[in-house]
Amino acid sequence: MTRHIRYGEAGREKAGIAGIEDVRLGACVADVGKFICVGLNYHCNARSLGLPTPSEPAIAMKPLSAICGPNDPIELPRGSVQTDWEVELGVVIGKRAKYVTEAEARSHIAGYCLVNDLSERSHQRDRGGDSSKGRGHDSFGPIGPWFVTADEIPDPQALDLWLEVDGIRVQSGNTADMIFGVDHLVSYISQFMTLLPGDLIATGTPAGIGIGMSPPRFLSAGQRVQLGGTGLGTQDHIVIASEVPA
Amino acid sequence: MTRHIRYGEAGREKAGIAGIEDVRLGACVADVGKFICVGLNYHCNARSLGLPTPSEPAIAMKPLSAICGPNDPIELPRGSVQTDWEVELGVVIGKRAKYVTEAEARSHIAGYCLVNDLSERSHQRDRGGDSSKGRGHDSFGPIGPWFVTADEIPDPQALDLWLEVDGIRVQSGNTADMIFGVDHLVSYISQFMTLLPGDLIATGTPAGIGIGMSPPRFLSAGQRVQLGGTGLGTQDHIVIASEVPA
Repeated sequence: MTRHIRYGEAGREKAGIAGIEDVRLGACVADVGKFICVGLNYHCNARSLGLPTPSEPAIAMKPLSAICGPNDPIELPRGSVQTDWEVELGVVIGKRAKYVTEAEARSHIAGYCLVNDLSERSHQRDRGGDSSKGRGHDSFGPIGPWFVTADEIPDPQALDLWLEVDGIRVQSGNTADMIFGVDHLVSYISQFMTLLPGDLIATGTPAGIGIGMSPPRFLSAGQRVQLGGTGLGTQDHIVIASEVPA
Repeated sequence: MTRHIRYGEAGREKAGIAGIEDVRLGACVADVGKFICVGLNYHCNARSLGLPTPSEPAIAMKPLSAICGPNDPIELPRGSVQTDWEVELGVVIGKRAKYVTEAEARSHIAGYCLVNDLSERSHQRDRGGDSSKGRGHDSFGPIGPWFVTADEIPDPQALDLWLEVDGIRVQSGNTADMIFGVDHLVSYISQFMTLLPGDLIATGTPAGIGIGMSPPRFLSAGQRVQLGGTGLGTQDHIVIASEVPA
């Protein structure tokens, strides 16, 4: 399996193949044009939140400035009280897709990568407008460690995904449990907006997010978040406090 | 006033100064990184829709693939029954803004341009998730004709904005009527996500949108949409049918 990475100083990453030691890994996809997040897309997650299964995919956009490397620190927003994690399979578009069918969808996918779709739940839910206020903080979109081409993952609906906070496994699922599979998502989204090479679809998360716990649990500075998926590698983040107010 | 344009074939535009004749104008801002739309930001619009004044700005993200030139055709999405217009003042960021105050905001603004924030209301409201399903169709983000630097518009809260459908004026407002002014918006948004050079904020629209009419009126193929603003120039669009189903 060829593992395509990008490494080096933030903003000046170079392309490479996994195996290089002692370098910072950047987001494995350069020049993402749209970062589309699918909500509530796992049966186990909908059940655990007590929510009905959506009748069609729910989508939201993550601001691109949130993208960071797979082992970069996760920075809490100022005043954050509800920063939450979501391990997800990321689908990277390889060929323009507009009004494509589910049968055509696979040929528009370049490959896959691991995504942590972080959000601040109180900013996302309680501050008006779309959820983008809670999704776009710097470091809320770690991508990688690597990008794998679609031919290396013939069945994207058979991948384990997991996430641990301070070594405790909180998410443990499989993409077989998706409500809307990868091909359906690509086809569906392409009815509303044209998908272009480099666009990234974060396909939803299994059960075990902080807001679904009882009582809810969220991230605080000093915690460690690790996540991974079959063939997708692992991410390892330290949570850090927000920038000191000016 | 220096009017910065981009002209030529879509995807291969060159930079120039307004005055060139007989060329296609592209979006006047290249490499937009985030296209942030502010909802319900004019007193007159909130009143006409019978909605309360928001207590803080509501924002949403427009997918970047929707961006097009100021005179390009507006393409209806397949099955569209509620494609609507919104003339807006666009604010272009010039300097990274994270946690900036309202007093600091102006120094982070590079300049301004005219934006038509089109959306398909039924896709935006009735299909689940954020409003991005209705905001991101190809051609739903015309920008231009030109970009003017901030020093040429010393008071962005004193600009007339207007929009006509088939020669009938339907929107006629002034940025003085904004609920949250430009400086407040830049400061506010920078608390949630870092604004970077090239990011674009569409600052909301005055009364006179199709969904607010009684009965509501929406665009159909063959109609003409023209819009403009003080110092911002004009846009002129023909509405065209959706691509023929494959």
